[in-house]
Amino acid sequence: MPLARISIRKGKLSAHRRAIADGVYDALRETIAIPEGDRFQIITEHGDEDLIVDPHYLGIDRSRDNVIIQIFLSRGRAADKKQALYRSIVERLHAFAGVRKEDVMIVLTEVGTEDWSFGLGEAQYVLNPPKK
Amino acid sequence: MPLARISIRKGKLSAHRRAIADGVYDALRETIAIPEGDRFQIITEHGDEDLIVDPHYLGIDRSRDNVIIQIFLSRGRAADKKQALYRSIVERLHAFAGVRKEDVMIVLTEVGTEDWSFGLGEAQYVLNPPKK
Amino acid sequence: MPLARISIRKGKLSAHRRAIADGVYDALRETIAIPEGDRFQIITEHGDEDLIVDPHYLGIDRSRDNVIIQIFLSRGRAADKKQALYRSIVERLHAFAGVRKEDVMIVLTEVGTEDWSFGLGEAQYVLNPPKK
Repeated sequence: MPLARISIRKGKLSAHRRAIADGVYDALRETIAIPEGDRFQIITEHGDEDLIVDPHYLGIDRSRDNVIIQIFLSRGRAADKKQALYRSIVERLHAFAGVRKEDVMIVLTEVGTEDWSFGLGEAQYVLNPPKK
Repeated sequence: MPLARISIRKGKLSAHRRAIADGVYDALRETIAIPEGDRFQIITEHGDEDLIVDPHYLGIDRSRDNVIIQIFLSRGRAADKKQALYRSIVERLHAFAGVRKEDVMIVLTEVGTEDWSFGLGEAQYVLNPPKK
Repeated sequence: MPLARISIRKGKLSAHRRAIADGVYDALRETIAIPEGDRFQIITEHGDEDLIVDPHYLGIDRSRDNVIIQIFLSRGRAADKKQALYRSIVERLHAFAGVRKEDVMIVLTEVGTEDWSFGLGEAQYVLNPPKK
């Protein structure tokens, strides 16, 4: 159910991009219990002028390789689950893709159960709501 | 009022892209009664590694030509209207653009009436709310 | 905290893109009091067929250089603050980037305080909520 938009600096190797996408998926599996195979991700690459992050906001030292991860997911996760998600994403991107922990920005946007169609024009979660 | 982000596989013909965009607009017109001309769409193309969808989630057989359609729209449509919207989008994309019905993912995100400005720096829907 | 996605026509000069991004940031600073350095923006360029806006919706005369600005921000700004934001963005884009006032579409999407991580896997606003 989550749809993730992953925005990275242009020019990274294919394996790097894949490691980031895998890390986001694995972290969602681990921390907010999404089902196996619930994976929908869009990766976009951006030049230096087009992915703009402040290098110091909130005292965090960001580099030009900052990654912005925007995740649309169903409403209802508690704040501590979200915090566990952030930690898990950052750990995985650091361990498996070499991304600095300072360089991971994450933004969640919550939507309703009826706001998803996974194919065939059906609203699958209206009939069979996923567990939270 | 809806803003649609349509993410497709790289390399499709111009006519194919247009048919998808037309289908999304026509389905919105038909099922949730948006006014004529209320059309704002952004199409992006993605390589094989950058538009990632699970090939089997929820038992649906997806191909590499899966389309992800994200629609931002004003709050307040009932679930059955949304279900009609999903059906209509899938029917139109299948009939007019040849997209497999399994290959259409749709995600809605609701926003407020005051969250739109259509030009000139005005919040047009605050003064003149659209009909639902 | 706001994350801005700025979608423009392909082929604009670097200085033009920068002026638009600066204008959006300055308007957010001025009208909804975001802190200095709270700047996270993604600019994308699109061909004529891929950034589709109606040329007349709501009686506004749009050109092919229409800009779509989508801003994700924390919940709780009053409608009049949002209206001030729209006016300020349009004024700045017109004055500093030469964008026609008719050619600026803005869409806000509100998220929660706990929906942000600005780096290090922490949910910075849970511990230290920003002022509104």
